[in-house]
Amino acid sequence: MELQDLILVSTDDHLIEPADMFKYHMKAEFKDRAPKVVHGTAGAHHWVIEGNRAPGLGLNAVAGRPKDEYGFEPVTYEHVRKGCYDVDARVEDMNANGVLGSICFASFPGFAGARFQRIEDKALALATIQAYNDWHIHEWCARHPGRFISLGLLPLWDVDLAVAEVRRLVRLGCHAVSFPDNPALIGLPSLHHECWEPLWAVCEENKVVLCCHIGSGGNAPYPSDESPIDAWITSMPISIANAAADWIFASFWKRYPGLRMALSEGGIGWIPYLLERADFTYQQHSAWTRANFGKDKPSDVFRRHVVTCFIDDEFGLRNRQDVGIDMITWEADYPHSDATWPHSPEHLWQSIRTLPSVDIDKITHLNAMREFSYDPFALLGRENCTVGALRKAAEHVDTRPLSRGGLNPSAGSDKPVTSADIKKILSHV
Amino acid sequence: MELQDLILVSTDDHLIEPADMFKYHMKAEFKDRAPKVVHGTAGAHHWVIEGNRAPGLGLNAVAGRPKDEYGFEPVTYEHVRKGCYDVDARVEDMNANGVLGSICFASFPGFAGARFQRIEDKALALATIQAYNDWHIHEWCARHPGRFISLGLLPLWDVDLAVAEVRRLVRLGCHAVSFPDNPALIGLPSLHHECWEPLWAVCEENKVVLCCHIGSGGNAPYPSDESPIDAWITSMPISIANAAADWIFASFWKRYPGLRMALSEGGIGWIPYLLERADFTYQQHSAWTRANFGKDKPSDVFRRHVVTCFIDDEFGLRNRQDVGIDMITWEADYPHSDATWPHSPEHLWQSIRTLPSVDIDKITHLNAMREFSYDPFALLGRENCTVGALRKAAEHVDTRPLSRGGLNPSAGSDKPVTSADIKKILSHV
Repeated sequence: MELQDLILVSTDDHLIEPADMFKYHMKAEFKDRAPKVVHGTAGAHHWVIEGNRAPGLGLNAVAGRPKDEYGFEPVTYEHVRKGCYDVDARVEDMNANGVLGSICFASFPGFAGARFQRIEDKALALATIQAYNDWHIHEWCARHPGRFISLGLLPLWDVDLAVAEVRRLVRLGCHAVSFPDNPALIGLPSLHHECWEPLWAVCEENKVVLCCHIGSGGNAPYPSDESPIDAWITSMPISIANAAADWIFASFWKRYPGLRMALSEGGIGWIPYLLERADFTYQQHSAWTRANFGKDKPSDVFRRHVVTCFIDDEFGLRNRQDVGIDMITWEADYPHSDATWPHSPEHLWQSIRTLPSVDIDKITHLNAMREFSYDPFALLGRENCTVGALRKAAEHVDTRPLSRGGLNPSAGSDKPVTSADIKKILSHV
Repeated sequence: MELQDLILVSTDDHLIEPADMFKYHMKAEFKDRAPKVVHGTAGAHHWVIEGNRAPGLGLNAVAGRPKDEYGFEPVTYEHVRKGCYDVDARVEDMNANGVLGSICFASFPGFAGARFQRIEDKALALATIQAYNDWHIHEWCARHPGRFISLGLLPLWDVDLAVAEVRRLVRLGCHAVSFPDNPALIGLPSLHHECWEPLWAVCEENKVVLCCHIGSGGNAPYPSDESPIDAWITSMPISIANAAADWIFASFWKRYPGLRMALSEGGIGWIPYLLERADFTYQQHSAWTRANFGKDKPSDVFRRHVVTCFIDDEFGLRNRQDVGIDMITWEADYPHSDATWPHSPEHLWQSIRTLPSVDIDKITHLNAMREFSYDPFALLGRENCTVGALRKAAEHVDTRPLSRGGLNPSAGSDKPVTSADIKKILSHV
């Protein structure tokens, strides 16, 4: 296999919602109360939800800049590549990066729609979520058939409504929803609460994956204000290990053998350690904790139910059997600063080229296609889905780095950027 | 090599301070104000510091119980094995477990002495810390020459005092101090603050290792009250990854090439992932974060300066080169519930037996001996230091599991034990 032959399905990317996204999909009675974009201080664009400014137009959407501007926080649409908010341009950027398919997480609503959950008028909140989903499915994903795995938001304050929304999403062909990695941390019942059972049931019944993005419930804490921001960036994905352990020891898996969750942007290289540790915990402590996995071990439950993903993770790939070869997927993370766009295939190839092609195919696309009920080959023809074929269709796309402005965390200083510097610029968005 | 030939130096164990520990070592003027043990409610023993009850006589000191009592919280000296607080009995328990040498962390003061740091009368605080260190060195460690690596506490509220105490400890033969994994989380300056420079300097100059135990600054958060406690136990060691990243990106290593810190009880299997991630962060982000490792990568800094340790970690051992073979050490964690006492050699043997003996020797004792300036062979003769030899000297030690009482987290229920159950019993200690 050559780099050109890779077929890349990315299970974690991000979109920036365009300002007109609620134009066609908000129910008439709520139309004038839909979230809207305003010009704030210093020309920044802000989404306003129910009168409150939502932070972050498109946090960290820096693809296509020179690397010395990767920390600049974009605050207007002009500060980001068009591919962030315009789906035609997005597909061109995917082509340029050899990426066939993509799951696009929400930006201003929060990865799992936390800002929509908090809308006080719950009828408005539901209408907003449904409008969001309709826009996401009909305008973002459907415009380029076979290129996106749609991802719904749910009204999580009421499980009956969430179940109904899952059923509605499934009728629209959607098989993934965004769910907080730890709902207890955003004021919802913990994932162990029995209230969620109907949601688990409807997701299992319809093969809908619960996608839990890092930072959707828990967050990597800044070690200190003076810490180099590199420390925070480094530990961000592994910080989902706490939530991962919580999901592993949940009691509901045995009742929903087909249920799936995904650790979106969690990385994979640390997982074999965590699974061995979970099995040790079970062996060492279950006599008093009364954990009961029947004939299984905790690691069996994880490898059966949890979809994993990585950007760049040579160690994880080398230990793919211990991670769970049948559930590993790849992600591009466009347009965030960890993305290696437009060179993702080259980065991935460095670490994956030595693997057997059967494993490469599982990791790059087959696992994602199976778990997310996604079949691009039927629509597009497999031969048109490779890195080589997609890039050929994108020869006209200008991928040269371009300065775009935004908030500069170092503000002219040449000292290393700290947590405090980042907190300061984020307080302005 | 056979199991009997292993030589085991444990870089993380725990002691419970005996009630008379301040009898001989507190300065006369503070003698009546030394911490003391009182009988509290329901017969529980409590340490009282400056009029305030300190929680936890010996948190989780459950070695020697049947496994279904591993969650019972001991609240009196009668609830724990004598080896927890009596050094003669401790050495017998080490012999029974084939353990030659041991670093013993403090219990009621907090791993890094946080409760002593908070004593309001700073003269009393300093006297308490010095009395603690003198007791630890003269009564605990010195009573059995060659069997312990002494570990000092420091007056961290004043770096000049801390430096002086390091010098005093070194004169007493001590080459390890307990330091918070993230000092910013317990109200001290972050590890990036320049105030620590004299401490780094004196530790480097005298080969004193900063031992950063999990939970000494940061803590693994409970995912939720309803979470099975197994989730928390599982993610506890890996939660130090956030602090580990903070240490990796510290700027002082280049100024103190001989300085060492240890991730005590952190485990090892997740480390190759974190190091690869740190290197990726450096490659991807340093153009804007201005991190500067000169000719090194972040992983080089880690493998040069950070001593790691594990209890049971087959995956980490298999990937020992990626962890850093020359800095891996082993730990027993006696008398805590993750310890496999008195069967630690058997557990370790399962995962280490397939390694080359040169690697086994590094991991089980040579790395620890070199990094902690510890030379038991000179005193005891290498042939008397093996698992086989030590266990022969311990044939009379009764290691049979014994019910000992304590606070039962499930209080008669047969439901799985949750975070809330553990929080509840800990609120009583």
